[in-house]
Amino acid sequence: MSGSVSPLAPKTFAEMPSVRGVRMATAAAGIKYKNRTDVLMMVFDRPAVVAGVFTRSKCPSAPVDFCRKNLAGGVARAVVVNSGNANAFTGKKGREATELTAKSAAKAVGCAESEVFLASTGVIGEPLDATKFAGVLDDLAIAGKEDFWFEAAKAIMTTDTYPKVATRSAEIDDVKVTINGISKGAGMIAPDMATMLSFVVTDADIAPSALQALLSAGVGPTFNSVTVDSDTSTSDTLMLFATGAASADGQPAISDAADPRLNAFRAALNDLLRDLALQVVRDGEGARKMVEVTVEGAENDAAAKRIALSIANSPLVKTAVAGEDANWGRVVMAVGKSGEMAERDRLAIWFGDVRVAVEGERDPTYSEAAATAVMKEEDITIRVEIGLGSGRATVYTCDLTKEYVEINGDYRS
Amino acid sequence: MSGSVSPLAPKTFAEMPSVRGVRMATAAAGIKYKNRTDVLMMVFDRPAVVAGVFTRSKCPSAPVDFCRKNLAGGVARAVVVNSGNANAFTGKKGREATELTAKSAAKAVGCAESEVFLASTGVIGEPLDATKFAGVLDDLAIAGKEDFWFEAAKAIMTTDTYPKVATRSAEIDDVKVTINGISKGAGMIAPDMATMLSFVVTDADIAPSALQALLSAGVGPTFNSVTVDSDTSTSDTLMLFATGAASADGQPAISDAADPRLNAFRAALNDLLRDLALQVVRDGEGARKMVEVTVEGAENDAAAKRIALSIANSPLVKTAVAGEDANWGRVVMAVGKSGEMAERDRLAIWFGDVRVAVEGERDPTYSEAAATAVMKEEDITIRVEIGLGSGRATVYTCDLTKEYVEINGDYRS
Repeated sequence: MSGSVSPLAPKTFAEMPSVRGVRMATAAAGIKYKNRTDVLMMVFDRPAVVAGVFTRSKCPSAPVDFCRKNLAGGVARAVVVNSGNANAFTGKKGREATELTAKSAAKAVGCAESEVFLASTGVIGEPLDATKFAGVLDDLAIAGKEDFWFEAAKAIMTTDTYPKVATRSAEIDDVKVTINGISKGAGMIAPDMATMLSFVVTDADIAPSALQALLSAGVGPTFNSVTVDSDTSTSDTLMLFATGAASADGQPAISDAADPRLNAFRAALNDLLRDLALQVVRDGEGARKMVEVTVEGAENDAAAKRIALSIANSPLVKTAVAGEDANWGRVVMAVGKSGEMAERDRLAIWFGDVRVAVEGERDPTYSEAAATAVMKEEDITIRVEIGLGSGRATVYTCDLTKEYVEINGDYRS
Repeated sequence: MSGSVSPLAPKTFAEMPSVRGVRMATAAAGIKYKNRTDVLMMVFDRPAVVAGVFTRSKCPSAPVDFCRKNLAGGVARAVVVNSGNANAFTGKKGREATELTAKSAAKAVGCAESEVFLASTGVIGEPLDATKFAGVLDDLAIAGKEDFWFEAAKAIMTTDTYPKVATRSAEIDDVKVTINGISKGAGMIAPDMATMLSFVVTDADIAPSALQALLSAGVGPTFNSVTVDSDTSTSDTLMLFATGAASADGQPAISDAADPRLNAFRAALNDLLRDLALQVVRDGEGARKMVEVTVEGAENDAAAKRIALSIANSPLVKTAVAGEDANWGRVVMAVGKSGEMAERDRLAIWFGDVRVAVEGERDPTYSEAAATAVMKEEDITIRVEIGLGSGRATVYTCDLTKEYVEINGDYRS
């Protein structure tokens, strides 16, 4: 591991305001290393509404199973997140660890275990010693502060090189509400979803089904459109909490996601989700370049997304980007292997604004120097016109570098 | 490019006998570089029966289109293979190049253009100047020798670090027949199929439909079960030719692939295809380790193969192998992301003979030292028991190293 911050890191971090109704604190519980902050606790002093989306892995972690079960209740009072151990593929011991953690958290906060949500990130397959939480959660529940977002983001980092924070505000029926979010990512990042933990909290007052509908719709073009290495974690968790504190300012409770009074909120939420998702890509392990891949003119949107992901996940495309090589032939290859309808002789490809291929062959006006100049940029766009329909999708990825291999060649040891 | 031979290269090469009925010669036509052998011509002085399988890319190269069309005739007199330029995504110019090449070859050999087969490998998207062939094919048709297999294998190399040859013999109704094959590969290697050109010739006398049936069945567990980087070429071509020369020794013509007299031949052919396919993996770009992934107990064989490929194509699994890290958690991840039925608490995983996980958690008897010793080997087996059915598949891959990134980060330039 290099220890240095990604060259694609944001130059400045968002100033994170408080969100009424949630307090946070962190501790060093010694889960994997001594004296390293490895636990984050979020406390909702009054019950918050909760929504969530999780990994589609067939082998989800114990905390993912636990959260899915509790999500049915729709109410959250506490969230416990740890790094250092994913509590995944830990069998019966894993379930026992989630139960013990939930019990400790429920006791510390004074709520039901069904109102506790858990997330773990780190090594897979090692039993998680949940007794380590027992000593710290009581203190964390008391110590929690509203103004603690940046520290919270730092606490959940693993191979991340910078903390990921974002904030937005919007009005619901003329009442201002805030949305704050934090994420961790770095590797094992692929749709559905990125590996990735993300916790978003708003003080808006929104009913469970509406909140879930907003989140489920928002994740498609954001977290489910980023990929670092095509690998999908067993632990992917994105949760959205609504504390309802804005009702004190007169915000009327909203029970239907289609309610037009949510329009500005929806836009702000989606923008925040996109911001966090792109921060995850920009911290992709070993990444030196950010790549935006847009596919247009596919049979339909789903086909466009599959083609875009085929390009974004291709090791040959990603190494070409790392080498600053405008190797559009590999883009053709990736379109061809996607399995989606494509007609060679209708394809056109752009790197940045430079059209390098058109009608099934090299663009006769294409300047290698201009294309190479595009590849030297930090942020690169690849656009492909399929020429068959109106399907469209954009996905985001990073390059594949020697550093990725280095980071992942000795992660566990 | 490192220029050094893969550490996984065979220690010795097969002694290649002649196969009656085929002659070969090579030339330096200056397709991409001057004074580098870049053209191979195979000549069948009497019409040979031909079978072929090709890339499933939706954007196949012009030579693939050309071969598919001619395959319907079932007869081959000449094969022209070039390196340096794939003649892929070259539009109308690409089709003109195949026509011009076929015309030159047909004239040189004295056959119909429909009896010529073509394959090109190299850069995608650059127009291929077929006039460069015109000068050399006449000479090659005359110069061709039967005893030229090793040189032929060398002529079709691109980023390959060693030539790939294999030979087998078998008896058909007590008459000995020979099967010789050559391949090239290295990168952009994934099922269906590897990038990869391969030409196999036998002196057996087998009818077109039977020959095609043998090849189509043989490719599944061999060439379509190897993957280097999950990328699929636009040019993948595997052709099998039967000269029929063994009929002079009394071999009866065989017209049905199910004819029991073909049993030994089929076994020998499949063994040769497997040999060549594994040579391709062992020369995977940057490879230092060979990995055999076997999945058992899946819902069915197709599911087993998809799970096995999910493991074999996972960048995180492949970098762990490169780092000699027995990181079985990443194998769990790859099983989970495959989308196939799996039940976490039934999974068992072996590295070599070391069972590292069982019943959904770390094997309590598992010794890290023993697992690490396995990972230090050059050839590594990963076995996963899904515990749900009787589906089974084995695929072959290599590790993902910094050298892969290096080789592909500046291939085109």
